[in-house]
Amino acid sequence: MRKILILGAGRSASSLIHYLITHADQQEWRVTVADKDPAQAQRLVHEGPTVANGVALDATDAQARATLIAQHDLVISMLPAFMHMDVLKDCLALGKHVITPSYVPDALWPMDADFRAKGLIVLNEMGLDPGIDHMSAMRILDRIRAEGGRMEAFESHCGGLVAPESDDNPWGYKFSWNPRNVILAGQGGAAKYIRDGQVKYIPYHRLFTDTVRINVHGLGEFDAYANRDSLKYRKAYGLDDIPTLLRGTLRKAGYCEAWNAFVQLGCTDDGYAMELPATATYNDYIDSFLPHAAGRDTRTMLMETLGLDPKGAVMQKLDWLGLFGNNAIGAAGLSPAATLQRLLEAKWKLGPDDKDLVVMWHRFRYSIEGQHQELQASLGVIGQDQTHTAMARTVGLPIAMACKLVLNNKLDDRGVLLPLKPTIYNPILDELEKHGIAFREEEVEA
Amino acid sequence: MRKILILGAGRSASSLIHYLITHADQQEWRVTVADKDPAQAQRLVHEGPTVANGVALDATDAQARATLIAQHDLVISMLPAFMHMDVLKDCLALGKHVITPSYVPDALWPMDADFRAKGLIVLNEMGLDPGIDHMSAMRILDRIRAEGGRMEAFESHCGGLVAPESDDNPWGYKFSWNPRNVILAGQGGAAKYIRDGQVKYIPYHRLFTDTVRINVHGLGEFDAYANRDSLKYRKAYGLDDIPTLLRGTLRKAGYCEAWNAFVQLGCTDDGYAMELPATATYNDYIDSFLPHAAGRDTRTMLMETLGLDPKGAVMQKLDWLGLFGNNAIGAAGLSPAATLQRLLEAKWKLGPDDKDLVVMWHRFRYSIEGQHQELQASLGVIGQDQTHTAMARTVGLPIAMACKLVLNNKLDDRGVLLPLKPTIYNPILDELEKHGIAFREEEVEA
Repeated sequence: MRKILILGAGRSASSLIHYLITHADQQEWRVTVADKDPAQAQRLVHEGPTVANGVALDATDAQARATLIAQHDLVISMLPAFMHMDVLKDCLALGKHVITPSYVPDALWPMDADFRAKGLIVLNEMGLDPGIDHMSAMRILDRIRAEGGRMEAFESHCGGLVAPESDDNPWGYKFSWNPRNVILAGQGGAAKYIRDGQVKYIPYHRLFTDTVRINVHGLGEFDAYANRDSLKYRKAYGLDDIPTLLRGTLRKAGYCEAWNAFVQLGCTDDGYAMELPATATYNDYIDSFLPHAAGRDTRTMLMETLGLDPKGAVMQKLDWLGLFGNNAIGAAGLSPAATLQRLLEAKWKLGPDDKDLVVMWHRFRYSIEGQHQELQASLGVIGQDQTHTAMARTVGLPIAMACKLVLNNKLDDRGVLLPLKPTIYNPILDELEKHGIAFREEEVEA
Repeated sequence: MRKILILGAGRSASSLIHYLITHADQQEWRVTVADKDPAQAQRLVHEGPTVANGVALDATDAQARATLIAQHDLVISMLPAFMHMDVLKDCLALGKHVITPSYVPDALWPMDADFRAKGLIVLNEMGLDPGIDHMSAMRILDRIRAEGGRMEAFESHCGGLVAPESDDNPWGYKFSWNPRNVILAGQGGAAKYIRDGQVKYIPYHRLFTDTVRINVHGLGEFDAYANRDSLKYRKAYGLDDIPTLLRGTLRKAGYCEAWNAFVQLGCTDDGYAMELPATATYNDYIDSFLPHAAGRDTRTMLMETLGLDPKGAVMQKLDWLGLFGNNAIGAAGLSPAATLQRLLEAKWKLGPDDKDLVVMWHRFRYSIEGQHQELQASLGVIGQDQTHTAMARTVGLPIAMACKLVLNNKLDDRGVLLPLKPTIYNPILDELEKHGIAFREEEVEA
């Protein structure tokens, strides 16, 4: 029996746990799911009572955490990113393999040699984005290079969206993950990418206007806004000399132009508490960001200030949110971003019958024997239900499959790893295809 | 003999020291000027060798600092704001009065009772802005209220600029103080003000477009952009219920519209190092912030991206800076803001014969016996020479005069003080008038 510990039973853990339970007997696994809410952990293991167990754990309790980790062979940390380092240190001390869907913390790299010395694997960025993006890009990049191709441009975009059949609002968006992260997306510094050999920077207030339009086969038109640092994986992908490299986030076409209205007004600022009473309306909220003009209503001032067409698509989206009526905020002392989040959580809620959508899209431009070529690869995944959402499946299944590789000794490398090598990406991408998570490749006229 | 210690002999200390020296015999003062550069301290005291002395001091050396403070009766701290708290703690421990031109640090208020208990004065915000703004505003506010007026609106703006006779560039601007502060002005959070009873917020990226145009008698047209927190002195000025309160910074008309081009591009970001080599040109620098478009030059892309008129006033200002030529940056690894500062320090340098200008402007709207009234008060000060600039005189002279009040026991209050009361503002504003620093008041048709 190999014992697997999952720390954190949030909503992206459902498909991961389901996979582990359904493979437990065959793989000789025993699964423990630990969460600060033991009822939530129990809910997620109820389908496999003989192989899986839900337990209570306050992951900030170092003693309890170490005791639990010590009883297992492999740890999967689904905890918030800021809690990972404590878990990673425990795993090093206690000699356990560990897998996470999160970005490698800067503080982890210096521990690489220690993990190697103990023969341990720390496999990170193993979910959707980061995760499937790495694996799908590297499989195609390695293939192109093996054929003698020279990379000229790589663009990669991903988005967690709403399925076409559940897309019934003008924004084409509902929350399938952390609403706060959606509101604050793109903040914290200029976005950086490289185009034709030149490093380009986009300040936050231009992020949702300097977008690119993308057509994804069978799913329609999307806008991509640039991620914070597109150059982060330049070296890891072996693309040190590539002239064009851009990574971004997808939203349905038209979303970014409308979201830009909030950015321009200052509605996404999370840095101060507004002086609005709880009885203030969303009309008052919008008015707080507009210059004063006697006799003009808020909606008119907004259109004049931002240069919006009264009957255009942006105003249609803003009107649909009920921004200009008597809708009270209902809480005081919130930041602009938190005030907006209150409204959007009500308006963009994924309903009980709604399904979510994950879209990923890569473009590879390369030359081979003097010919310019373009290949596009796209992935569209629709959620099965409220539990096994596209987000939960695309985040959780790669982690579960990686767990199988690690416990069956299929990986030779040790230390701090990302899923960039064929030994990881081939078996996982192949198995994901069997679960309906498959990329569609298309050669495009270059 | 009363012994005065000046900590810090930067360029805003010249007129302060000159005043203290010329009044030293009559007032029975002895003056010590301490700076980390003793030659600089010596230069500023050379005209009064019998009454003034320049000494070397590393103000971060707690022992040396305390030893020097202990030998004096009153300390004037012209040190950078972040060093004030150490000096203030020394003055409390050693029982010395202290005057500064800086904002009251938050950590100072809890020490108020201790200073009072020892009968000590800590007089802050005693320069130009903050300083003369408080005194000139409070004198008029107190007068209006004494006459039975009810305040409806107060607007107050100040700027350190270039004198009309030295204004020979299209920006109407040269550096008369810290260039870095000019580049970063307005960053760090939304600006806040109150208009017709409603609190309004302006995000940084709209700060230089949401400006107000002001005509100052005899000095022409200026644009004011909002200060970070206009409401900071609402209570201290006795304006808790005022419907409109706005404080701002003045630039010559047209400056803000052109500066906004830098803000929109992201050129004022100080948060990351650019990946430009030292041989890169300012054209490359601007290009880094622009979307890519084949065959278009940087200047054209800039105009298209920001919607600028090729022959308009903004492009005239940008062209004058030489942004689109082969002018090399000459240093690598700088932030966008530091790169821009390198260029502007060369272009906006105050020449040896140039004079600076300080402008302050207040508008008071009030009602009295059912009548709406408006009073404007304006101050324009032109520098005498490179040493006794308008900035040095308007910052330094109020401090020197306050020093006289404190040492001659003219102030009854003790503890943490701002110059908001007639006992301070009347004698100082009256004496400033004799030095040519006089407000012009004008009743305006309301």
